[in-house]
Amino acid sequence: MPRITYVNGQYLPHREAAVHVEDRGYQFADGVYEVIAVRGGGLVDEDHHLDRLDRSLGELRLAAPVSGQPLKFIMREIIRRNRVRDGKVYLQITRGVAPRDHPFPAGAESSLVVYALPVRQPDPETGLKGISVVTVPDIRWRRCDIKSISLLPNVLAKQSALDSGAGDAWLVDDDGVITEGSAANAWIVTKDGDLITRHLDNFILGGITRIAVIELAEKAGVRLVERAFSVEEAKQAKEAFLTSSTSYVKPVVAIDDTVIGNGEAGEVTRGLYHAYEAHMDAQGANGAAD
Amino acid sequence: MPRITYVNGQYLPHREAAVHVEDRGYQFADGVYEVIAVRGGGLVDEDHHLDRLDRSLGELRLAAPVSGQPLKFIMREIIRRNRVRDGKVYLQITRGVAPRDHPFPAGAESSLVVYALPVRQPDPETGLKGISVVTVPDIRWRRCDIKSISLLPNVLAKQSALDSGAGDAWLVDDDGVITEGSAANAWIVTKDGDLITRHLDNFILGGITRIAVIELAEKAGVRLVERAFSVEEAKQAKEAFLTSSTSYVKPVVAIDDTVIGNGEAGEVTRGLYHAYEAHMDAQGANGAAD
Repeated sequence: MPRITYVNGQYLPHREAAVHVEDRGYQFADGVYEVIAVRGGGLVDEDHHLDRLDRSLGELRLAAPVSGQPLKFIMREIIRRNRVRDGKVYLQITRGVAPRDHPFPAGAESSLVVYALPVRQPDPETGLKGISVVTVPDIRWRRCDIKSISLLPNVLAKQSALDSGAGDAWLVDDDGVITEGSAANAWIVTKDGDLITRHLDNFILGGITRIAVIELAEKAGVRLVERAFSVEEAKQAKEAFLTSSTSYVKPVVAIDDTVIGNGEAGEVTRGLYHAYEAHMDAQGANGAAD
Repeated sequence: MPRITYVNGQYLPHREAAVHVEDRGYQFADGVYEVIAVRGGGLVDEDHHLDRLDRSLGELRLAAPVSGQPLKFIMREIIRRNRVRDGKVYLQITRGVAPRDHPFPAGAESSLVVYALPVRQPDPETGLKGISVVTVPDIRWRRCDIKSISLLPNVLAKQSALDSGAGDAWLVDDDGVITEGSAANAWIVTKDGDLITRHLDNFILGGITRIAVIELAEKAGVRLVERAFSVEEAKQAKEAFLTSSTSYVKPVVAIDDTVIGNGEAGEVTRGLYHAYEAHMDAQGANGAAD
């Protein structure tokens, strides 16, 4: 079965899925994207993702070529045509094709690309296997709340983590405060048992998994505080983990050369890992929601 | 005559010039570019542009698919096939096509796109007509010395300038210091006649036109100082202008609501405008260099 990708109104064989070289996504990173987990055929937290997409588009004054129900239809059609049961949907909207010039082009039609692919889902043993992270300077722009495709610094941070043998990078501002991971929100559990994740501002992306995990923590009676935390505080934490729509809840068991807790996923992390798995399963087309 | 664009080894009709949706330039802004002026069929300061391209590629550990003489050949072939006498060449190199994942992909081949187009050259009257600029916060990432395609903040700055009726934006850091324009280096002439442009560091791009204008200023006996200057100092300047490979030397006659000098291109600016025009003309295939 050939993989099928949606590009501006057409369902194409993936290898033919192309955009013009003067698409502003290619020349200016002038676009936004979303990655949505698919579990049991269902889109996890779809409405939250589409709300965030609308916000990103609004901040950039970028008109969606398709939104609402028609966009939901396209995502479902892409999942169906690619027979994805567990995996992810990637969608990207750019300001479209126009002769290269910095200002917003008059009359250009924005571009939409949507594809889906299966991803092997972790069993609890692999999912709860912790990773180490390294801290690196956060050199990104100052509107990381917009989920733009302007991801080069994130790429460089992730690569520097892999180069040093770690699984991810946590980004640190000039005050020694952790903003977030290269593509994930950062969390710690203090020795007092408080769950801490950075408050939302222009310096981090408001993760959709972050929203779900905050709700799940509250349901579980975990005290949650949204505030900045430093590298030093993180290294003294009892537990640490990261969250994203592709990593889900992933334990962090070392920060730079400091082992966190006993070097394995901690109790709060484990609880949230399982709660988030259940949260995803409940949204599957054949899951508990049926 | 159809416009012809080079894409990864092929000379294609421009409308068919496309890249895959998983090209890392499209999904991660993982690429670099150059814009080179063409004057009289010749590439202006070609070697400086190719040196800067090599530096950008090196900083991103990105291998060029083509470089040196073969790249020079492609640019000439594109100029010839498009019959460009005066205009510009655009070239872009990205890390190529790979399944979307942040780290550098193993085995992906980097992509090269080259096109050229004619641009109506200014006569001295239009070229010396000054523009106004507005100052806006510099929200870009911290490696603006790399000429990456991660240009979304530059796009937003330029658009905000147009929205407020100005011709360009000058970017200002937290200390009130001007870094550069949205796509140009910024210059002032003090009341003492010193020509000032910001020193090179990670916060600005080392402009190729900047190199030429520094040399031309020295030849003309203008005192040049490479140092940062504030918005306040700029507003008190006798003259101001910007430089880029597409704007050449362009007078700035107002900064925010402050008129600079007498509101027209000043004496030093005019001298450098004409000197840079002659510098470009001298490099034309049929110019003085022949």
